[in-house]
Amino acid sequence: MKIAVDAGGRLSLEETVRGAAQAARDGAEILLFGPAEDLRRALLACSVPERDARVRVVDAPEAIGLEEDPAAACRDKARSSLLLAAGAVSRGEAEALLSSGNLAAVVLAASWNVKRLPGVLKPPLACRLGTSRGRALLLDAGVHADCKPWHLLQFGLLGAAYARRVLRISSPKVGLLSTGEAGTLNETVREALPLLKYSGLEFAGAVDGRDVALGKADVVVCDGYAGSVCRKTLQGTAAAFAQSLEEALAGGRLAKLGAALLRPALEGLRGRWTSGEGFCSTLLGLEAPVVHCRGRGAEEIAAAARLAAEIAASGMNEDVRGSIQDFKTSMDAARPL
Amino acid sequence: MKIAVDAGGRLSLEETVRGAAQAARDGAEILLFGPAEDLRRALLACSVPERDARVRVVDAPEAIGLEEDPAAACRDKARSSLLLAAGAVSRGEAEALLSSGNLAAVVLAASWNVKRLPGVLKPPLACRLGTSRGRALLLDAGVHADCKPWHLLQFGLLGAAYARRVLRISSPKVGLLSTGEAGTLNETVREALPLLKYSGLEFAGAVDGRDVALGKADVVVCDGYAGSVCRKTLQGTAAAFAQSLEEALAGGRLAKLGAALLRPALEGLRGRWTSGEGFCSTLLGLEAPVVHCRGRGAEEIAAAARLAAEIAASGMNEDVRGSIQDFKTSMDAARPL
Repeated sequence: MKIAVDAGGRLSLEETVRGAAQAARDGAEILLFGPAEDLRRALLACSVPERDARVRVVDAPEAIGLEEDPAAACRDKARSSLLLAAGAVSRGEAEALLSSGNLAAVVLAASWNVKRLPGVLKPPLACRLGTSRGRALLLDAGVHADCKPWHLLQFGLLGAAYARRVLRISSPKVGLLSTGEAGTLNETVREALPLLKYSGLEFAGAVDGRDVALGKADVVVCDGYAGSVCRKTLQGTAAAFAQSLEEALAGGRLAKLGAALLRPALEGLRGRWTSGEGFCSTLLGLEAPVVHCRGRGAEEIAAAARLAAEIAASGMNEDVRGSIQDFKTSMDAARPL
Repeated sequence: MKIAVDAGGRLSLEETVRGAAQAARDGAEILLFGPAEDLRRALLACSVPERDARVRVVDAPEAIGLEEDPAAACRDKARSSLLLAAGAVSRGEAEALLSSGNLAAVVLAASWNVKRLPGVLKPPLACRLGTSRGRALLLDAGVHADCKPWHLLQFGLLGAAYARRVLRISSPKVGLLSTGEAGTLNETVREALPLLKYSGLEFAGAVDGRDVALGKADVVVCDGYAGSVCRKTLQGTAAAFAQSLEEALAGGRLAKLGAALLRPALEGLRGRWTSGEGFCSTLLGLEAPVVHCRGRGAEEIAAAARLAAEIAASGMNEDVRGSIQDFKTSMDAARPL
C-alpha cells in the first residue's frame, strides 16, 4: 500500500517523518513530500537509511500555511507538499493521501486531484468519535456547511459502507443528528428523515447530541456545521473533563495516593474518550482515501497512515458503487414517466 | 416574586410539587397549576398546610403530553396546566412561568401569552453549560432551527444583557459558534460575523465546540440546531464520561480504595460539569422569563424557580430594551436616505 504523505502540515516536519517512518516499519510504502534536504535529515534521525525502499523522498520546496486562503494557496503553490502529494495520487503513484495541513486546502487539493466515485455529490469528511459504547462514525465532520437532504442520504450510504467494510459492523445503525425536539427541526433535517427511512439502511431515526455520546448509533449523519460542532464539543468536553480529573487527582496527599491506585483504570478511560483515532478524519466517496490528521505527534501520523491503508484495502468503494447505483436505479424507477 | 408553575410536565406531579414547595420556602410565591385534588394531596405530603399563603393551587384538569403535536395541543387544551399557567403570566398574576413539559408547546404557549420586548424578533432559549472554566451561556439552545444573521446578533445582545445582569460579568465575552475552519463556515455564520464584530459587544470572534468546553466565551450564540447539538453533546459527553469514571472506580479492590480516597475531589468535578443548572433553560427577550426544566427531580424544579426569580429581579429587560433600541437607532442612521 503506497501512501503519499504531505510533511508540510500542522505537525512539525520531524514529527511527521517519525510517524511516516513508523508507518513504513508497519508495512506501508511511503512517498514523503517536503523540502528534500530536511526530510532526509529527519529520516536519518529516526534511523531510516538513505536508500530504504519503503520511504521515498519527493522534493516539495513550498508549504501551505494553516491560515492561508485555501483557493489562492492551491492555485499559486503548485510546488507545495500538499499539491505534489495529491498529484501523486491523481497519477496513481499512491493509493491514499495523508496530510495534517490546512483542512480546506486539503479538501480542495483532493477535489482537484482525486476522482469522485460515480454519483457521489459531496465527498463527506468522516471521523470516528469515542463514545461510552465504543466509537461512532460522524459524517460530515466539518467540510460541507450547507447541505441538502439528499446529501445527508448519501452520507448515510457512505458511512454505512465504511462501517460494514472498515469497522466490520455487519448491519450498522445509521442515525440523523437532530435536536431531539419535535417542532424545532430545521428544514434539511426534516426532509432528510423520510429519505433515510426508506433508503434500505438500518435507520435509527433522529439522534441528538446526547445519543451520540452514549453511542446509540454506529453512523451519525449531519451537515458539516452541525458535525463540526458535535465533534469538537464532544472531543473538547472529553479532553477538558479529563484535564479537570487530572487536576482533581493532584489535589492533596490523599488524592494523589488515590490517583496512584487508580492509574490503570483511568488510563483506559482516557484512551477510550480521547484516543488518537478521533484526530483522524477521512474524505469518503473518492477513488482513494484522503486522511486528515489533527493529532499532536508522530503516533497520530502513524495511526492515520494505518487508517488510510485499512480503508484503501477494505473494498468499501465497491460497496459504495453498488449502493449509490442501487439507490439511483430505485429513484429513477420512482420518477413519473 | 410570583411564579406560575405547570405541574403537568416531564416530571411527576409529586416531584414538581416538592420542588415548588422548596421554592416557596426559599421565598417565592407559587401558583401551582394541575389537577387540584392531586396537587393538594402532594402538598400535604411535603408538609405544606392547606392555606399556606405562599402556595396557591389552581385547578387545571388537562395536561399536554411530551409527544403531542404542540400546535394542536395548545389549540385544543385551553384548560391544560401549561396554558392556564401561561395565561396567569399574561394577565400579570405571575411574573415568571416554569414548566418541565413539551418544550415546543412551552415555546408556543409563551409566544401566545407573554409579550416580546420591543424589537425582539425571535426570543431565544438560553442555557448555562458547565465548562472547564465555570459556565457559558449558550443561546439559542434548541428552539429556532433556522436563523438569519440578525437573529444571531440579537441573541448576542440578549445573552450579554443576561451575563451582565444575572451572572454579574461586567464585560461578557460573546462568541459565535463556528466550525473553527475558515472556508467551511455556513452562510448565516459568515454573515453574522461582521454584524457581531461591529455591534459594540465584547466580541470574542468565532469559537468552536472545543472553545465552548474550555469556557473561552461567556456567551455563545448560534442557531437552535447547532445550539441543541452543542448543548446535548456537551452534557451527554460529560454525563457519559462521569458514568465511565464511576465504572472504572468500581473496577477492583484497589480501585475502590482509590475511589474512596478521591470521593470529595470527584464530587466537585461531577458537580461542575453536570450540575442541575444545565437542565434549566430560559426564553429571553420576553416581558417575563419562561424557564424550562429538564431535570430529574424536585431539586431541579427548585433551582429553576430560583433562576426564574433571579432573572425577573435582575433588571436585564431594561438593559435589553436599551441595547436593542441603541442598535436600531444606529442601523436606522446607517440606512441610505
